[in-house]
Amino acid sequence: MFYHDKRLQYKVKVDKPNPAFARMLQQAIGGIEGEIRVCLQYLFQAWGTRGPVKYRDMLLETGTEEIGHIEMLATAVALNLEGAPMSLKDEMAKDSMIGAILGGMDPRHILSSGLAALATDANGVPFNGSWVVGSGNIAANMLANVNAEASGRVLATRLWEMTDDLGMKDMLSFLIARDTMHQNQWMAVIEELGGLNGAFPVPNSFPQSSENQDFNYTFVSTNIADGTTPEGRWTSGPSIDGKGQFTVQPIQPLGDEPQLAPPDPRGHAQTEEMMGPLGTVMGKIKDAID
Amino acid sequence: MFYHDKRLQYKVKVDKPNPAFARMLQQAIGGIEGEIRVCLQYLFQAWGTRGPVKYRDMLLETGTEEIGHIEMLATAVALNLEGAPMSLKDEMAKDSMIGAILGGMDPRHILSSGLAALATDANGVPFNGSWVVGSGNIAANMLANVNAEASGRVLATRLWEMTDDLGMKDMLSFLIARDTMHQNQWMAVIEELGGLNGAFPVPNSFPQSSENQDFNYTFVSTNIADGTTPEGRWTSGPSIDGKGQFTVQPIQPLGDEPQLAPPDPRGHAQTEEMMGPLGTVMGKIKDAID
Amino acid sequence: MFYHDKRLQYKVKVDKPNPAFARMLQQAIGGIEGEIRVCLQYLFQAWGTRGPVKYRDMLLETGTEEIGHIEMLATAVALNLEGAPMSLKDEMAKDSMIGAILGGMDPRHILSSGLAALATDANGVPFNGSWVVGSGNIAANMLANVNAEASGRVLATRLWEMTDDLGMKDMLSFLIARDTMHQNQWMAVIEELGGLNGAFPVPNSFPQSSENQDFNYTFVSTNIADGTTPEGRWTSGPSIDGKGQFTVQPIQPLGDEPQLAPPDPRGHAQTEEMMGPLGTVMGKIKDAID
Amino acid sequence: MFYHDKRLQYKVKVDKPNPAFARMLQQAIGGIEGEIRVCLQYLFQAWGTRGPVKYRDMLLETGTEEIGHIEMLATAVALNLEGAPMSLKDEMAKDSMIGAILGGMDPRHILSSGLAALATDANGVPFNGSWVVGSGNIAANMLANVNAEASGRVLATRLWEMTDDLGMKDMLSFLIARDTMHQNQWMAVIEELGGLNGAFPVPNSFPQSSENQDFNYTFVSTNIADGTTPEGRWTSGPSIDGKGQFTVQPIQPLGDEPQLAPPDPRGHAQTEEMMGPLGTVMGKIKDAID
Amino acid sequence: MFYHDKRLQYKVKVDKPNPAFARMLQQAIGGIEGEIRVCLQYLFQAWGTRGPVKYRDMLLETGTEEIGHIEMLATAVALNLEGAPMSLKDEMAKDSMIGAILGGMDPRHILSSGLAALATDANGVPFNGSWVVGSGNIAANMLANVNAEASGRVLATRLWEMTDDLGMKDMLSFLIARDTMHQNQWMAVIEELGGLNGAFPVPNSFPQSSENQDFNYTFVSTNIADGTTPEGRWTSGPSIDGKGQFTVQPIQPLGDEPQLAPPDPRGHAQTEEMMGPLGTVMGKIKDAID
Amino acid sequence: MFYHDKRLQYKVKVDKPNPAFARMLQQAIGGIEGEIRVCLQYLFQAWGTRGPVKYRDMLLETGTEEIGHIEMLATAVALNLEGAPMSLKDEMAKDSMIGAILGGMDPRHILSSGLAALATDANGVPFNGSWVVGSGNIAANMLANVNAEASGRVLATRLWEMTDDLGMKDMLSFLIARDTMHQNQWMAVIEELGGLNGAFPVPNSFPQSSENQDFNYTFVSTNIADGTTPEGRWTSGPSIDGKGQFTVQPIQPLGDEPQLAPPDPRGHAQTEEMMGPLGTVMGKIKDAID
Repeated sequence: MFYHDKRLQYKVKVDKPNPAFARMLQQAIGGIEGEIRVCLQYLFQAWGTRGPVKYRDMLLETGTEEIGHIEMLATAVALNLEGAPMSLKDEMAKDSMIGAILGGMDPRHILSSGLAALATDANGVPFNGSWVVGSGNIAANMLANVNAEASGRVLATRLWEMTDDLGMKDMLSFLIARDTMHQNQWMAVIEELGGLNGAFPVPNSFPQSSENQDFNYTFVSTNIADGTTPEGRWTSGPSIDGKGQFTVQPIQPLGDEPQLAPPDPRGHAQTEEMMGPLGTVMGKIKDAID
Repeated sequence: MFYHDKRLQYKVKVDKPNPAFARMLQQAIGGIEGEIRVCLQYLFQAWGTRGPVKYRDMLLETGTEEIGHIEMLATAVALNLEGAPMSLKDEMAKDSMIGAILGGMDPRHILSSGLAALATDANGVPFNGSWVVGSGNIAANMLANVNAEASGRVLATRLWEMTDDLGMKDMLSFLIARDTMHQNQWMAVIEELGGLNGAFPVPNSFPQSSENQDFNYTFVSTNIADGTTPEGRWTSGPSIDGKGQFTVQPIQPLGDEPQLAPPDPRGHAQTEEMMGPLGTVMGKIKDAID
Repeated sequence: MFYHDKRLQYKVKVDKPNPAFARMLQQAIGGIEGEIRVCLQYLFQAWGTRGPVKYRDMLLETGTEEIGHIEMLATAVALNLEGAPMSLKDEMAKDSMIGAILGGMDPRHILSSGLAALATDANGVPFNGSWVVGSGNIAANMLANVNAEASGRVLATRLWEMTDDLGMKDMLSFLIARDTMHQNQWMAVIEELGGLNGAFPVPNSFPQSSENQDFNYTFVSTNIADGTTPEGRWTSGPSIDGKGQFTVQPIQPLGDEPQLAPPDPRGHAQTEEMMGPLGTVMGKIKDAID
Repeated sequence: MFYHDKRLQYKVKVDKPNPAFARMLQQAIGGIEGEIRVCLQYLFQAWGTRGPVKYRDMLLETGTEEIGHIEMLATAVALNLEGAPMSLKDEMAKDSMIGAILGGMDPRHILSSGLAALATDANGVPFNGSWVVGSGNIAANMLANVNAEASGRVLATRLWEMTDDLGMKDMLSFLIARDTMHQNQWMAVIEELGGLNGAFPVPNSFPQSSENQDFNYTFVSTNIADGTTPEGRWTSGPSIDGKGQFTVQPIQPLGDEPQLAPPDPRGHAQTEEMMGPLGTVMGKIKDAID
Repeated sequence: MFYHDKRLQYKVKVDKPNPAFARMLQQAIGGIEGEIRVCLQYLFQAWGTRGPVKYRDMLLETGTEEIGHIEMLATAVALNLEGAPMSLKDEMAKDSMIGAILGGMDPRHILSSGLAALATDANGVPFNGSWVVGSGNIAANMLANVNAEASGRVLATRLWEMTDDLGMKDMLSFLIARDTMHQNQWMAVIEELGGLNGAFPVPNSFPQSSENQDFNYTFVSTNIADGTTPEGRWTSGPSIDGKGQFTVQPIQPLGDEPQLAPPDPRGHAQTEEMMGPLGTVMGKIKDAID
Repeated sequence: MFYHDKRLQYKVKVDKPNPAFARMLQQAIGGIEGEIRVCLQYLFQAWGTRGPVKYRDMLLETGTEEIGHIEMLATAVALNLEGAPMSLKDEMAKDSMIGAILGGMDPRHILSSGLAALATDANGVPFNGSWVVGSGNIAANMLANVNAEASGRVLATRLWEMTDDLGMKDMLSFLIARDTMHQNQWMAVIEELGGLNGAFPVPNSFPQSSENQDFNYTFVSTNIADGTTPEGRWTSGPSIDGKGQFTVQPIQPLGDEPQLAPPDPRGHAQTEEMMGPLGTVMGKIKDAID
């Protein structure tokens, strides 16, 4: 259950509104690297947690914090949109600078939301619930969360580079710091669960003896020109999970050419696709069915 | 540039076709945990790699291997669909077993593809290009890739549990093994790039002095009931990246209530929203503009 | 800024888990009539509110309450999935009842989430951010919200009819009650803003003298057979907003057939589309450009 | 069944083509506030109407009118695109005005449609069938329709503000007038069905005695700072539907912390998630199953 | 501009309602092979037609006819849903046949539409405006339309096979006949525009001398095993457009390995990606910029 | 199974990077007319081919070639993005040209990918798996493929017109040539399968005697004004498939007004919709059920 405070978690100040920057900020709201995604992802993971309760509690806390980050960014979008040009009348004809601003804006910030944030990314593509990843496996979830925070921090540092508005830089330096913490936090769970040795391969509850033993620590090279691959940490030596030795081999076809049965006549392939011995048989089956 | 071999990377055999299992396999083709995603993700990351060429080469190899995994699964879907009921005529009325099979199938396997695989997930939701994540930061990319392989391996083990078809179990044990390797492979790059200490926080090229120093290693608790949070690896001690000390603090509002300007009259809020001192001013501005 | 309590807003109890009902409940989580939509809709409207602060405050409160409704439903999904069949092995072959349950489940509840809720609807279609409607006009927003609560209450009553699990019926009777309140609440704002007379037509800030005066209170009939339309409240008498009189007229073409210019040669229509007088001229222009 | 007239319902004239305005108009074609949505929404509601035929007839008439509105807007887009720059060659390098126009255009108006309208919104996001809302409840449908016409009229007035092209302003003044009528029309049905008293809460066929009586007319406040909420029409007095009295109460947790069963071993959570008493039991069940 | 007749273009009768068949019919309404797509596709093509008016007129006629086909199918869905089970209460527990029907239904036919059609496909995936293809090239458009009618007729014949309801079979035999006509109709335009010789390659307005002359009639083989490809009409002899001779060659790399510049420091790749000579230079540039 | 070569199929050179052109090229990567679509479409068709193996082989070859085309375009995007402005700081304020470039760019090329290609179209809309069309009917598939290559070649010629970069023009002239070949190639299969006479109507395996004989070669005119339609190849003479004679007739209603049963009470329509004789009966049924 949730409560709110009318104040923001951190101050949001825009010294000089910039509608093009408002559009950029949308990526951090409704983009795949954005805050709606992490907010819902952590909350859904919490609500689906089976097993130790402490992980549910932690996910619930950080998911709740993230609602406030959406709030901060939505506020920043609204503030950056103040004074935006709302007309194509004179501007496009007379002033190329205003034209450029309009070209750099999200038109739906004028048309749809009336100078407010939308649940979309920087191109106006709506937030998509498929990005809310929760697998029912705590290690896989932590990796999904680290991934989200890493791409989120990359995004936030790019936004930080893009602006020289001191208010926006300050807000972003706060969000970047939170991403630092959250990256550490999710990796801390991995460490608590046994670290790279104990947690990998994810899921660690599947008996590794049931996986193919010839290909679980082998780098497969598809490079046709010379059949070699550059050496790296992944080509030799002990595997990261400590359970195998890395090797390299060129890709080989171990399967045959696939053999599919002829079309079922009721699926109405072209007649020519159904001829030949098997096709004839299927035709008879259909006669019998009808 | 790419070449193909008509044979499969690994054998795909279905002992007893099962249309409901064909539907399940679609998740591993066109779902967010599936092979189209990793295939395109690794290839797009390769094509966008700036910096050391060895990572591009590696991504290209594994991306190319993954095309063949889509092929194996698409073949498995086609084989599992052979003999599927293609009619609601008698079956729904007379035989509840066939009715159940039809209920468990993807209807588009009959209607749209004629007993072949689709570029969709197990619910028929189309593959979505937003899942193809490549950030231009090699560490963030590796974390995205580990995430994909972890959720992919969880999915594959669940499919393995779902079937007792020996051919399908064998194919899945191969794919599970490849997921083991790929998880290790991406983490091996992280190790090569300095490991948890060197690579984190991602991106490591942003000067940490520019991020807020009060919140970059602090667990923020939103728990209102007692203001405490369970202890974990993330509440005290050195941070995972070795660059800070974990602390805990209850959430506090550091920002004010947001103050947004009144609506621009040309955005046609309700009249009542535009009244008051500022609204009046804006109205006058509009009069002047018109 | 937000806080949480580990307890639920209302009790969620499942007497007899039913995986097919878990799928149905997804519609109330991630469907267009569902709780993620209203939660984000009210919060985004709050964050974008310009004008009287009291409406922002109210939206913030109800938006915050709705997070807890997602939580209740996600919990109900997880509880209904307990004990779900996780295999197609024997069941499809031997027991048509289990086959039917599997046919009625969302396969991603097994494959993707490990028996937990997803941010999708009852067909596994992901939540879509385009549903988060906030227009910057308080009356339009209230109508969007009434619409959401009306379709939400219709959905909840259908879910209530679908189950005889007493725990689920109790939870739904709470959610139905909240929908009753919320419908009243949003209409109360309309009343406060002047009611049907004062608030309509939305937006009331556009000067009605600038809209076409011949068609703003006229029901246009497209019925070709007899050119008549059944009488209703909308065919005669004063308009609902009290600003006009309803009339009826058959549809009439007041515009001409459209005349579009020939294709720009650089757009590469077929050659045959570019011939004729105008086409020739355009061709010459292109020759001059190249 | 449908017929057409080659002429338009209302004249569409563009005095000075403006490709950036063409992009803006797309919102009124393929956006959530646009004409494809209302057209299909009214038609689908008509085709699904059960009960009094007069509502089906009315919906069919207005749905049919709306096809012609898509036509008008598509024509306006095509006319606004005439003479658009189709090259980045010289323009971006030499003339910032043309660069700005290109920046303000939808690139797919050049690349995909050859200077014609698309079934997308102003950001090129495709029309989405999920917006076609029809619930099988006439009051819920009318509220959905009022919502659509209110957001549609807000959009149209913003487009009207954006342009000083007399032809476009004239077309928009017609569409704005139709939105006025349609808002009145849908509310007239509500009045005919009993008005706010008779029709609310929607659906009125659910026995209100079956909804929770403690929460159906109570405003729940989540405001943590001072536990109060501003007074409004919705905090005291009779409810809008006349069936209750508004009250206010702070949010309270009436449910417990959720208790989920441990993971099913076949779902392959991490081993650590399955330990403890219940986990052990589940493991034994799995052993028995395998 | 459009008119309607309350009667249907062809009779729609359902002898025995079947909710699972209602779901199947949705593919013909809101699927990529369905009637909403062709309806909007032909209308948008008409509205964007530049050049000879006769093609616009024709497209307008067939587009208008298709609205009536959506209507027929939506009516068929509503009729097939009558008497559908609306509860999971007793049925799932006691009667596997009803359970199977529920498993085969679209749950949103109960939950969202109240036993009426939706603007979705057979899996509940919403209609997507991206399918509405109109390129501004009449030949490309006709090929898009033939494609749509071919996949539409395949779908309709499969639906015809699926049912033994005489009313449904009769309706489908009408729709199949219309697909036959429409396939012929669109190919007739191709013939009128010069047939395969005159119209191909599409667009025929691009000077073929500007395309690469070594690869425009060459089948490129990627088959690595033996470097050969089976002979077909496309491997030798005159090309279909009569403008070249088919040849075959194995794929060859004519381009180099790509060389991308190092990352821009403001894009915050990992530090390790920016090292080396070029990286150093870029770093200095950044220093200068900051 | 697949292999790769590090070199490109054809050279990709950018003389003068242009970030706005990078955005345009995205349409050819992730748009509906783009290379991801044809690549996956041909491969999925190959993997689902039942019947003559030669068609599978051919599809596999061209599908494999297309992976390399995505690679070429992704490389072209990365090269065009080099040196792109990554800041809104000074540029928007001081230099309208850079402002215009930023307005013309895809912001996610900076924010999300770090100057690399994305799996999206020119508006940032993600690639959608629904575009991967394979019907299980070889003729329908070939028409889908011709459609894709025709719209693809139209797109490529427009991109060719848009740029005067010699490297880009050279790359595009190669891709245009491949589209010429592929159009011919797919039509060659149609010819091999019997040509327009033999292959049409698609599917040719459905007995035409089972389709409605009154409407399979009749152009239906919906034009209300004068009831006539312009003459064309499709209004008289033998049909294209040689199996009928074209005729014309005005549209006629052959069906009645639809009669739907009243709402099921458990679907909670408004009470007013359920009254009348049938409604009463249904209400009694419900009473009995409860």
